[in-house]
Amino acid sequence: MTTKHVLPADIERTSMQMIDDELSKRGIVLSTENAAVVKRVIHTTADFDYAETLRFTPGAVSGGLSALSAGTAIVTDTNMALAGISKPAMRKLGGAAYCFMADRDVAEFAAKRETTRAAASMFLAASRYPNAVYAVGNAPTALLELCAQMQAGLRPALIIGVPVGFVNVEESKLRLLDLCLKNGTPAIISLGRKGGSNVAAAICNALLYAASGTLDPTSRGWRG
Amino acid sequence: MTTKHVLPADIERTSMQMIDDELSKRGIVLSTENAAVVKRVIHTTADFDYAETLRFTPGAVSGGLSALSAGTAIVTDTNMALAGISKPAMRKLGGAAYCFMADRDVAEFAAKRETTRAAASMFLAASRYPNAVYAVGNAPTALLELCAQMQAGLRPALIIGVPVGFVNVEESKLRLLDLCLKNGTPAIISLGRKGGSNVAAAICNALLYAASGTLDPTSRGWRG
Repeated sequence: MTTKHVLPADIERTSMQMIDDELSKRGIVLSTENAAVVKRVIHTTADFDYAETLRFTPGAVSGGLSALSAGTAIVTDTNMALAGISKPAMRKLGGAAYCFMADRDVAEFAAKRETTRAAASMFLAASRYPNAVYAVGNAPTALLELCAQMQAGLRPALIIGVPVGFVNVEESKLRLLDLCLKNGTPAIISLGRKGGSNVAAAICNALLYAASGTLDPTSRGWRG
Repeated sequence: MTTKHVLPADIERTSMQMIDDELSKRGIVLSTENAAVVKRVIHTTADFDYAETLRFTPGAVSGGLSALSAGTAIVTDTNMALAGISKPAMRKLGGAAYCFMADRDVAEFAAKRETTRAAASMFLAASRYPNAVYAVGNAPTALLELCAQMQAGLRPALIIGVPVGFVNVEESKLRLLDLCLKNGTPAIISLGRKGGSNVAAAICNALLYAASGTLDPTSRGWRG
């Protein structure tokens, strides 16, 4: 072993200070309520575009914090995001995170209804966890299904809508933002093509850390 | 359910065509050997910076393909990357992927040696899977430990060095690139701050799909 011990908290602090410095160099001032989420996403991606593209509906962060503090479940559309969500912070808050994408009933349901597994997983999740925090990092069809469910009355505690890609991605996020602004559902959305499971997990973790006061030992702080 | 069925292969084809179009608009011509990896990373991130920052040592892709075709194991530094690596493609090739970060012996070893768990996980992995494909999406200290192991004689089949972040990240990737160019270890590296578990998994999957002829149903193609 040649590498020296690095305190996670020190790396975390240094990284966040570098992010603050670069944001101010760019003349970007983040709102106090949203700063921790935006900075966590930049910390996870090293991509400052998110300082410009992340959109928060009014009270999105406080709504997410209240829900997670009360142990509200998180439902996500990829097992990769599920793997990235801080388990210690969730446990501390009494919550749990779920992804139904790989479940057999989801595959069967998707085939029967001629839709994607992502949409089917959200359809089934909406009946199981109607008030959950939904974190979508991959599938536009998952967002569109959530939009359909909201039009049928679903009111999640928070929707994190950050799918990534080239086909139907930007459209699905604009549609979600419009609908959430109209119906008052708290939402955090990355406009444009960028996003991903890592971004979805980073937003969940920013909220979980703030709600629980945890620094997850598996978090980016341990990059060392 | 309101969303229509979308064929994964169609989404995949359309996305890759859009990526090709934008690359040619930008005047970027990818080498035939490396194109599939670069395009898979752009597909995963919607970030065309990777067309400029990904570096391949000579024969990196062919070396990775030969190793994975022979069922060589993949070792990664995050459970998030592990979750993103295509299991069907790995099974088809007779290989398996591992992440030791959450193992108790890694935590104990890291504490005893006063290093990070990421470095400890690579130190232990090097003795267990010396010829593995190493995919590092998070921890610079994991890369630095691999560099130390290579100086002691370790010769992995391929090192995917794509950690993300602000502290020691760029330096660790430059050091890895320099060492791999000198000792002939195949390496795929994202210069600069950007990278991540999603990028590490995307590079593994690009190679796994090519080696196995698989389109993983959990891959981005199912974004819908």
